[in-house]
Amino acid sequence: MKRRIELYDTTLRDGAQTEGVSFSVADKLRIARRLDEFGLDYIEAGWPGSNPKDIETYEALRGSRFVHARLCAFGSTRRPQTHAADDPLLQILIASGAPVITIFGKTWDFHVTHALRTTLNENLAMIRDSVGFLAQHAEVIFDAEHFFDGFKANPRYALECLKAAEEAGARVVVLCDTNGGTLPDRVAEATHRALEALSCNVGIHAHDDSGCAVANSLAAVMAGASHVQGTINGLGERCGNANLCTLAANLRYKLDMDILQTDSLAHLTAISQFVDEVANLHRNDRLPYVGRSAFAHKAGMHVDAVTKHSSMYEHIDPRSVGNTQRILVSELSGGATVASKAMLRAMDVTKRSPEARHLLKRIAEMEHDGYSFEGAEASFELLLMETAGECRHICDIEGFRVIVEKRGNGEPTTEATVKLRIGDEERLTVAEGDGPVHALDQALRKALRRAYPELEHIRLTDFKVRVVNVREGTAARVRTMVESRQGERSWSTVGVSTNMIEASWHALVDSIRYGLMLPPESSDNPTYSADAPSTS
Amino acid sequence: MKRRIELYDTTLRDGAQTEGVSFSVADKLRIARRLDEFGLDYIEAGWPGSNPKDIETYEALRGSRFVHARLCAFGSTRRPQTHAADDPLLQILIASGAPVITIFGKTWDFHVTHALRTTLNENLAMIRDSVGFLAQHAEVIFDAEHFFDGFKANPRYALECLKAAEEAGARVVVLCDTNGGTLPDRVAEATHRALEALSCNVGIHAHDDSGCAVANSLAAVMAGASHVQGTINGLGERCGNANLCTLAANLRYKLDMDILQTDSLAHLTAISQFVDEVANLHRNDRLPYVGRSAFAHKAGMHVDAVTKHSSMYEHIDPRSVGNTQRILVSELSGGATVASKAMLRAMDVTKRSPEARHLLKRIAEMEHDGYSFEGAEASFELLLMETAGECRHICDIEGFRVIVEKRGNGEPTTEATVKLRIGDEERLTVAEGDGPVHALDQALRKALRRAYPELEHIRLTDFKVRVVNVREGTAARVRTMVESRQGERSWSTVGVSTNMIEASWHALVDSIRYGLMLPPESSDNPTYSADAPSTS
Repeated sequence: MKRRIELYDTTLRDGAQTEGVSFSVADKLRIARRLDEFGLDYIEAGWPGSNPKDIETYEALRGSRFVHARLCAFGSTRRPQTHAADDPLLQILIASGAPVITIFGKTWDFHVTHALRTTLNENLAMIRDSVGFLAQHAEVIFDAEHFFDGFKANPRYALECLKAAEEAGARVVVLCDTNGGTLPDRVAEATHRALEALSCNVGIHAHDDSGCAVANSLAAVMAGASHVQGTINGLGERCGNANLCTLAANLRYKLDMDILQTDSLAHLTAISQFVDEVANLHRNDRLPYVGRSAFAHKAGMHVDAVTKHSSMYEHIDPRSVGNTQRILVSELSGGATVASKAMLRAMDVTKRSPEARHLLKRIAEMEHDGYSFEGAEASFELLLMETAGECRHICDIEGFRVIVEKRGNGEPTTEATVKLRIGDEERLTVAEGDGPVHALDQALRKALRRAYPELEHIRLTDFKVRVVNVREGTAARVRTMVESRQGERSWSTVGVSTNMIEASWHALVDSIRYGLMLPPESSDNPTYSADAPSTS
Repeated sequence: MKRRIELYDTTLRDGAQTEGVSFSVADKLRIARRLDEFGLDYIEAGWPGSNPKDIETYEALRGSRFVHARLCAFGSTRRPQTHAADDPLLQILIASGAPVITIFGKTWDFHVTHALRTTLNENLAMIRDSVGFLAQHAEVIFDAEHFFDGFKANPRYALECLKAAEEAGARVVVLCDTNGGTLPDRVAEATHRALEALSCNVGIHAHDDSGCAVANSLAAVMAGASHVQGTINGLGERCGNANLCTLAANLRYKLDMDILQTDSLAHLTAISQFVDEVANLHRNDRLPYVGRSAFAHKAGMHVDAVTKHSSMYEHIDPRSVGNTQRILVSELSGGATVASKAMLRAMDVTKRSPEARHLLKRIAEMEHDGYSFEGAEASFELLLMETAGECRHICDIEGFRVIVEKRGNGEPTTEATVKLRIGDEERLTVAEGDGPVHALDQALRKALRRAYPELEHIRLTDFKVRVVNVREGTAARVRTMVESRQGERSWSTVGVSTNMIEASWHALVDSIRYGLMLPPESSDNPTYSADAPSTS
């Protein structure tokens, strides 16, 4: 029988410590629901008592019933020289209504004497009392803070702390590498020793300060730990926590362990994207298993091989984690790359055809100017369609003007004018907007609406601006990406200019051109799925 | 005596496969020089023969002499059923003039029969001939492609391939986890077996598809490997290669091995930033050791402890890798955070003072509006200075107007008007620019120049725009960061608005206000160093 490994998510507590991340109560509720649907065993939603937002979160969660997960409230042991039953923070944990309470306590002698400023014996009593008191009200998980540093400094005392928690009724004792500085061999050794000393379940909670959070968690599991704590995408303070997405895929597909629900991992990429979106973080394309680039192939030679035989260049099937194979467009590509992309559109372009060579040359020139089609597949497809003479002619654009004006402390006003020609008819429209892109979008729609009523189903969902060449400061080139959506489909286009308004305009026009060429119904074109929505 | 571990950098070859990265020849030369100064043992600058850019790179490098590193040229074994001496690609490698040639060959039987479509014996001959021929002209390193998958499938054959390379004269045989799917325990075992079978040096080349590239490299070193390949920041195809920055710090500080030069690691953060800047990549703040967040502390409680006793919450001293401790500003912070930041400016604000509370409240409101001071320390300092009544009054701003206009296919024109008051004098100026931010910057400088001649030393170096709330599309809030520089100092400011021009304007004005308040000479204010320049 496969070993069952419990997964404990702390995205909403430790993950909320990520630099740049600030979850609202509503964000926390959305994520908690999604984590539960995904099939996690434990969800830690915050630290009630540390801030009012977390108290509100638990109040809001009290009514909801999870399908798979058990809700955990996080806190610490009682203060030195007090009684657990009188501790206001332990009372808040019980009042949170969470069926599981996770408390951390010290196990590093140096921390006991220098941070807590108490005796080693009093610290043992704090653990014993707090766990014992809480265990009368809830399932208790004990997080042994700084366990690996403590074990290195004073192994006998560190293990005594674990035993105090176990004897007082903790269901799981979790070995925490709080500073993240431990390497896998020491994690394995210390976990072995903890398992020898205890009879309860042992867990692991790793941080990535040495770049080994995933490997450390695996080392603990291989040493016998049965409970793994981490966060989606490895969010967390400093370098982050162990990435539960990577761990889940490794545990299931590499170590053949029993985790989550049967079909959970098919949603792994989706949950990773969802959390980054809610956290509003720039997504790391290179995340193992779930990153946008995780199954992306760029070199011409590889691409030939990949299209021949996927398993030769991919360690697992991307679909098993809900991800997609992608063939990238770049100057390094041989003709095979262009051919592969073109194949997706079932166009008759072979590797060494003049069309392929012409396209490669044009792409190289545009990339030299600052264009990047990676992440803007729709702009690339427009080029392909133009090459093949398949492009629908939408309109002739004659110009635009944008005026942004601000007087005193009032709101700025933005007005955009667009001039274009549809067949014989000239259209000159003007619109206001919340900003220049919005105003241009509004004016463009006004100009096209009558001829293309289907435009109303296309919606701009995101745009990003970045400076391509920082050495020239504000006069540098700017690359703008625009993301649009029609129903379930989304696509991205790119524009480049030294002027960010013009760059946005190019991307905007392409986005609408592409949208107007989409077939109204079919949703099985593989190139759309390659262009999943992204934040930032 | 400490074990010496050679570090081999392939940022310019495998790293160049990163999605979104395209190095010019000039980029490659800049990076190569910097990697050499840093003290690396081997630098692989490309794959001459795969593309003209790399041939040009080696031509350009031929004249230059490295101080520490040996230059390597990368290529593959000869084709099946040919002679090594006649192989044009091997000739190109020799012609590159690189003193070291690294060639990869197959060691996975399935790849030999299904990708190369040849016999297992012919593959052994290809390795033997190619290494033997090249060894007459250069030091040869043999990259055993897919070694771990090959070892799993057919260990005897995989080891035979390694022995063929060794016998033909390879100085190092490198075990490659090309698909990145292997976990540390298997890496350790296979490395042990390779070391038993060989007497030459053994290396490791890991990819991060399972999130274990660093741990796999360490596992190989602990099993006896003495040569480690990787890239700066873990750049590379799919999920990237082993991160040499993380590895270098782990090898030196955790495993006490002899690597690089004595003082190299003091420049570790700088080289990591430099490569991201040249690659023009969005920097991953959570990179171990060198990330912007790697020693950043956010939670109020931790911050109290960190200021008390750094080693309790940091696994190493940030200065040992050229990084800096940072105390972050966020709504989660207790009063201690504000006090710590304020301490840096030697202001008299204590944890529970009314000023600290007032500031926290104002920050919470601004964050609610989409502001983020993480990464915009200068804007935060301006708030602090305003609270303390220490702000220099620069001018009263009355308004601005920006007009961007494009006719036909011509270049767009951009004009900005700025109206402000310095004391009694009203200034109304207009300027053109390459884009709206540039034009506003020019007009603002024109208006301020006479009163503040020191402005000429302040230069805008970068700006970034991001949508804060993607759910509302183009009407969403936009956050702009502006980075400025004066001599060696750089600082970042933030502006938020639904209008990206207004957001840029706020950031721009703050950037100049802050710059004009800087003391002309001193460069030892720790808060400036916290704001290192960043790309994207």
